[in-house]
Amino acid sequence: MIFVSVPFTLYPVPSKIVVMPEFIFDKWSDIYARRAVALRSSQIRDLFSVTSRPEIISFAGGQPYTKPVEATDIVSSTKEALDNDKETPLRYGGGEGQHGLRLHIIDFLKAENIKVHEDDVLVTVGAQQALDLVSKIFIDAGDIVLTESPSYVGALNAFLSFGAQIETVDLDNNGLKITALKEKLKKLKKKPKFLYTVPNYHNPAGVTLSNKRRHELIKLAKAEKLLIVEDNAYSMLGFENNVYPALKSLDENVIYLGTFSKIFFVPGARLGWVIAPKAILEKLSIAKQAADLCTGALSQSITEEYLHLRPWPKRAKQMSKIYEKKRDVMLKTLEKYFPKDARWARPKGGFYVWVKLPYFVDTTQMLAEAINEKVAYVPGNNFYPNEEGKNYMRLSYCLPELKEIDEGIKRLAKVVKSRIELYRSFKKYR
Amino acid sequence: MIFVSVPFTLYPVPSKIVVMPEFIFDKWSDIYARRAVALRSSQIRDLFSVTSRPEIISFAGGQPYTKPVEATDIVSSTKEALDNDKETPLRYGGGEGQHGLRLHIIDFLKAENIKVHEDDVLVTVGAQQALDLVSKIFIDAGDIVLTESPSYVGALNAFLSFGAQIETVDLDNNGLKITALKEKLKKLKKKPKFLYTVPNYHNPAGVTLSNKRRHELIKLAKAEKLLIVEDNAYSMLGFENNVYPALKSLDENVIYLGTFSKIFFVPGARLGWVIAPKAILEKLSIAKQAADLCTGALSQSITEEYLHLRPWPKRAKQMSKIYEKKRDVMLKTLEKYFPKDARWARPKGGFYVWVKLPYFVDTTQMLAEAINEKVAYVPGNNFYPNEEGKNYMRLSYCLPELKEIDEGIKRLAKVVKSRIELYRSFKKYR
Repeated sequence: MIFVSVPFTLYPVPSKIVVMPEFIFDKWSDIYARRAVALRSSQIRDLFSVTSRPEIISFAGGQPYTKPVEATDIVSSTKEALDNDKETPLRYGGGEGQHGLRLHIIDFLKAENIKVHEDDVLVTVGAQQALDLVSKIFIDAGDIVLTESPSYVGALNAFLSFGAQIETVDLDNNGLKITALKEKLKKLKKKPKFLYTVPNYHNPAGVTLSNKRRHELIKLAKAEKLLIVEDNAYSMLGFENNVYPALKSLDENVIYLGTFSKIFFVPGARLGWVIAPKAILEKLSIAKQAADLCTGALSQSITEEYLHLRPWPKRAKQMSKIYEKKRDVMLKTLEKYFPKDARWARPKGGFYVWVKLPYFVDTTQMLAEAINEKVAYVPGNNFYPNEEGKNYMRLSYCLPELKEIDEGIKRLAKVVKSRIELYRSFKKYR
Repeated sequence: MIFVSVPFTLYPVPSKIVVMPEFIFDKWSDIYARRAVALRSSQIRDLFSVTSRPEIISFAGGQPYTKPVEATDIVSSTKEALDNDKETPLRYGGGEGQHGLRLHIIDFLKAENIKVHEDDVLVTVGAQQALDLVSKIFIDAGDIVLTESPSYVGALNAFLSFGAQIETVDLDNNGLKITALKEKLKKLKKKPKFLYTVPNYHNPAGVTLSNKRRHELIKLAKAEKLLIVEDNAYSMLGFENNVYPALKSLDENVIYLGTFSKIFFVPGARLGWVIAPKAILEKLSIAKQAADLCTGALSQSITEEYLHLRPWPKRAKQMSKIYEKKRDVMLKTLEKYFPKDARWARPKGGFYVWVKLPYFVDTTQMLAEAINEKVAYVPGNNFYPNEEGKNYMRLSYCLPELKEIDEGIKRLAKVVKSRIELYRSFKKYR
């Protein structure tokens, strides 16, 4: 084990580039809630100011590619919204969300074979708020939540912020391993509150749950009375003709989260939704009132009009094609530049390539060097509730242009190779 | 006591008009978090679909008067925002909020004699989200939070949703009674986490904390190491030349909440802010990440441009004048139509008149009758964490036109009078 840590103390890590929270004397430290201690920051957010600098090629965030969205379309959608009804977009609205926007959501869900009534839809501030509300109504400190290993960092942080004890289940190329889930359920000393899963184009792992496993999962959940929270943020962003049924379409008990951020419109609108059984949705609605009264009306009205102007099915196809090309370039350049002992899966959709490096490479330590070389990624450990994933990294191909992907992977390969060589030369001379 | 409840069982209350949650069989009832049981809905929100019907004159919500906001100004602000920089308004932004919007906030705070750096400002989804985040980082179940009696329903619901035990301190025409606060602090068996106060143009009581008491409060808070959360949503909406210093301007330890909803721009933008000591703000920022990643960029960019086009000092003056006229009409018509045994204070600013009716009138029970007469208000009990305030009601003069205020108060007076007469005639004949 000494080989892992020693070489890097010899190497000057320019840690000042990475945002380090300054030490603050905190005279209120004795009055915080217990959960405030568990609050965990996401490195994706902490690095935001660094990774959004123009000279850096960022594979870090899940920023969708917004170039195809025309400014004139947004301006005319704003005009249209206010022409239709000036007051609604300016005021407080109903907590459940606007009628017209919910109709778009229902329309989208139909394509996923999910049939819901308008009253079953709660509009939220991105899917992230839905995660916060689900956590708030289900998680007492010490409760068990099941997630995939790895899992979406924003979900982990929401669960941890309410004191959840997170238990993980492994993934493979076909998504969540159902046999591993069965074993985990047997081992647990108390019933988990729910299983959180990203079945389509997993964040960060890039894998997709096979059709067979979807049916097995629903069967198991029914037998074990296990509540499923399905996060379908990347739905419709598949690169193949395969159709994967939403878990919600197989079982009405599933809580389903969606978002306008990735295909529908843009993250800047901060709109998402949650579909849940009536009793649960009622609790989520009341929790939402206490959280922010209602979702922004102006943003909802603009989005509603935008989707009339640019209907989502066409956009989903257009964006899938763009992202597929970006994926292809990233996979090709990884193959070309990366060392032979790196591994990754081939995503069938979505935004992410999940790269495994040799066990001795710590991607958190390596990040400062990468940023010095003007390239950024998210260190793998962010996607685990524990110490795992240190030799993984998540590379997003969604935002950079094709030639930037090529250049960025070249820069990153240099950093990775120098890490590996340094380790090996140290080992040789010891 | 029998006189209070019996007459109303004789009277046919058309309770179906008031939104009653339907009974839902809840098979998940055994897996909710304990806090989900404490979740309390606001009648203001529950009644939203009823009170926003055009035939109803609503004194219920705190909807600001948005007529003076021109649609063309919003459209051109949207265009300007996207012309300046197309990508920023469409993407995920930094969790702390946008630079330009924070400059507007700093500018506003200067006028309140609060000097802060951009890094001291966290942009939130309305001031309500700031209440949610403050609750999240400070309140463990059973912790004591001090509020005024009555207090803003949205704040009470946020605190209760995290299991707070709310202890109240009385108000009079000069705001929070400092002697009552002193006594309360002596009586409490454990230290309260913080005091929540609305010093300016109180919601719902309409009163304003006197200058003398502001200094006394800060002195007491320092001596007792009591954290103050100051909600200044109605600041700058005063009708007199008196200037009341913000508590934050007297002590940097205060947590200060503000909003773009009431004067700055519109609630539809869903933007507010919190200013707090560095250590606290750091925790609030991380809690915000878990809650929604970041505040909507599109809405922030539009608001920023709007405030360049229509600077807030002029708007504050314009809106104050409009609201002052509305207050005058409401006070005049209350005087004219309401029974002699009703009482109310004269608000020096803000949106609300807080009316006290005879002890035997239950304003929650009376609401269905009022809605039948096509007028709405918020029953007083909503503004208390306990059974108090049943014979009070909050009347907002902010939204209706002047002639609607006159007509609405006339309708409401009829309902109130018939309640009082019914009670008296029942008493006579018993």
